[in-house]
Amino acid sequence: MKNRILMTPGPTMVPKEVLDVCHLQPYHHRTPEYFKLFSDLNSNLKSIFKTNMDVLTLTSSGTGGMEAVVANLFKRGDKVLVASIGHFGERFYDITKAYGLDSDIIDFGWGNAVRLDILDDALKKDKYKALIVTQNETSTGVTNDVKAIADVAKKYGTLIVVDAVSSLGGIPLDMDEWGLDAVITCSQKCLMSPPGLSFVALSERAWQMAEESDLPKYYFDLKKARKGVQNEKPDNPYTPAVSTVMAVKKATDMLLSTGMDTVYKNQHAIGEKVRKTVKDMGLKLFPDESISSDLLTAIEVPEGYKAGDVINYMSEKGVLVTGGQGHLKGKIIRIGHMGYVTDEMLDLTFDALKSALSDLS
Amino acid sequence: MKNRILMTPGPTMVPKEVLDVCHLQPYHHRTPEYFKLFSDLNSNLKSIFKTNMDVLTLTSSGTGGMEAVVANLFKRGDKVLVASIGHFGERFYDITKAYGLDSDIIDFGWGNAVRLDILDDALKKDKYKALIVTQNETSTGVTNDVKAIADVAKKYGTLIVVDAVSSLGGIPLDMDEWGLDAVITCSQKCLMSPPGLSFVALSERAWQMAEESDLPKYYFDLKKARKGVQNEKPDNPYTPAVSTVMAVKKATDMLLSTGMDTVYKNQHAIGEKVRKTVKDMGLKLFPDESISSDLLTAIEVPEGYKAGDVINYMSEKGVLVTGGQGHLKGKIIRIGHMGYVTDEMLDLTFDALKSALSDLS
Repeated sequence: MKNRILMTPGPTMVPKEVLDVCHLQPYHHRTPEYFKLFSDLNSNLKSIFKTNMDVLTLTSSGTGGMEAVVANLFKRGDKVLVASIGHFGERFYDITKAYGLDSDIIDFGWGNAVRLDILDDALKKDKYKALIVTQNETSTGVTNDVKAIADVAKKYGTLIVVDAVSSLGGIPLDMDEWGLDAVITCSQKCLMSPPGLSFVALSERAWQMAEESDLPKYYFDLKKARKGVQNEKPDNPYTPAVSTVMAVKKATDMLLSTGMDTVYKNQHAIGEKVRKTVKDMGLKLFPDESISSDLLTAIEVPEGYKAGDVINYMSEKGVLVTGGQGHLKGKIIRIGHMGYVTDEMLDLTFDALKSALSDLS
Repeated sequence: MKNRILMTPGPTMVPKEVLDVCHLQPYHHRTPEYFKLFSDLNSNLKSIFKTNMDVLTLTSSGTGGMEAVVANLFKRGDKVLVASIGHFGERFYDITKAYGLDSDIIDFGWGNAVRLDILDDALKKDKYKALIVTQNETSTGVTNDVKAIADVAKKYGTLIVVDAVSSLGGIPLDMDEWGLDAVITCSQKCLMSPPGLSFVALSERAWQMAEESDLPKYYFDLKKARKGVQNEKPDNPYTPAVSTVMAVKKATDMLLSTGMDTVYKNQHAIGEKVRKTVKDMGLKLFPDESISSDLLTAIEVPEGYKAGDVINYMSEKGVLVTGGQGHLKGKIIRIGHMGYVTDEMLDLTFDALKSALSDLS
């Protein structure tokens, strides 16, 4: 099996210090060392979500965290609006439908960001209980302006649910300051850890709404998870992925010791560097540069090349990038650069891409 | 933090060969190396479940696997019977209630096994769609005779759902031969891996029932998981806990290379050794010896001792055992010995227990 670097939308590269933690015997989850670990993790997560509310840890992928928000906040038939800009917006809509919500979706188009005027009109026309939006759409490499979107939603008293699965801990998000009501992320993107955990925080208003929810849930019951976090000896209702909890604790220590503002600055510099380099190679960014993500760069497959060939060639050179999803399959190439990214990894990526373009021409 | 051995009902000790795999950079889950890994894991799991049906991998604790079975098999208002012998039987009942099933529970008493005559009467009296039973109840150290229970259920055409969370891969279970319709297990018990994955297999009959199910599900949609397993390039609908998939692949390789019959024989010998040793110390087994589990031994706290003191003392000596759950708190001590257990670990446990009894008297 090849030793390749993952320049993908997740799982992303895990730093050695974090992998070393995964090498340890997992703690038992009802012991003083786990209570201390989990308490420290919870405090780290609050600093990264920028919230005074509890951040809850679920053993699931990010999709499980999205479902937990739907199952806990809503009632059957609730009207919610999904502002979609790609694959993950559509997934959130599908989850709301699976739970019998009366949900609407606005498709802003794959490659676009949410347009505030259109959103404002939609929220004005109908009474929605909640607006659901993706902060960073990895299917297209677009980042939404969540702060501005939240400001629009606030005019109508609409609850705002943010899928920050691929973005939290990489680009700015300030849950309390921006007035967000539900924020979801996971372990294997900007939090530099193996997959296996999702994290969810709810506002006071969202917890009040949760009191009215009549949708079935057990494993994803967020009230039970909150009780665990608030225990004198903080723990989880069901056996958590302990090794991954240990990993994320270590990774978030590293992020916080760098400082979140510096992390965001570095991540932005990486985004700028990737965009400049691919443009210098004569490649075209898929989304408009003004809405391009600092976490993932989507480029159009240049004429005369096949996406699959370029991806396979780069893979042979030790760099894993991904193609388009859905109708963008074959049309774009996606270079992930979120979380743990070094200059060496970027250079390897640029070299592999450059050789691909030259050797496959 | 202390270096202790886990003689607990899970997480259990992870062998060094498996931890070494957790030390590796996780694969990306849409790559040839992952497809190969996952395909090999699926084949290992079929050998351990002893089934020709697909075994599905979910990123969750065992409880998530239990919920997946409920959410996928049933309709709101379905009548099911839970034959409970302890904490985990009650949990399965709670899950059925959370999903609005019309479920009944027979409580056979904590410390007892399912009585076939009582079960037969109950199944005769009412028309139940399914019987739910725990193979190995870790709250009490009792193992049910699932084969005999399945034979009773078959007389009435009742679907049989088996919680084998703590038992599969440690004591005999033959899904196809015994005619079981749903079997659930997880990574961190007999499968000698860190927590984070559950595994579910369904019979043909259960898949047919799943067609009628009207309960909401998305993340735990087993049809989607089956589609992933059956793909030419086998994968998972959502990012799996890749490191744990890698771990369980390695651990199940180890089990199968030992051979399941030898694994069961060894596990039985460990059970016998623990029971004999604690009886020789003058301690009393909590359940009757005829139904005592080979995976976990529950002993009564002898007069003049406090459970908490014994557990803390043993913990100081480097051995983690656990106390009773629910109303058995303070009354029993539970020594887990499932999965990866060496003679050295057993000797350490016996020495720590012996010293506790002598020093705390």
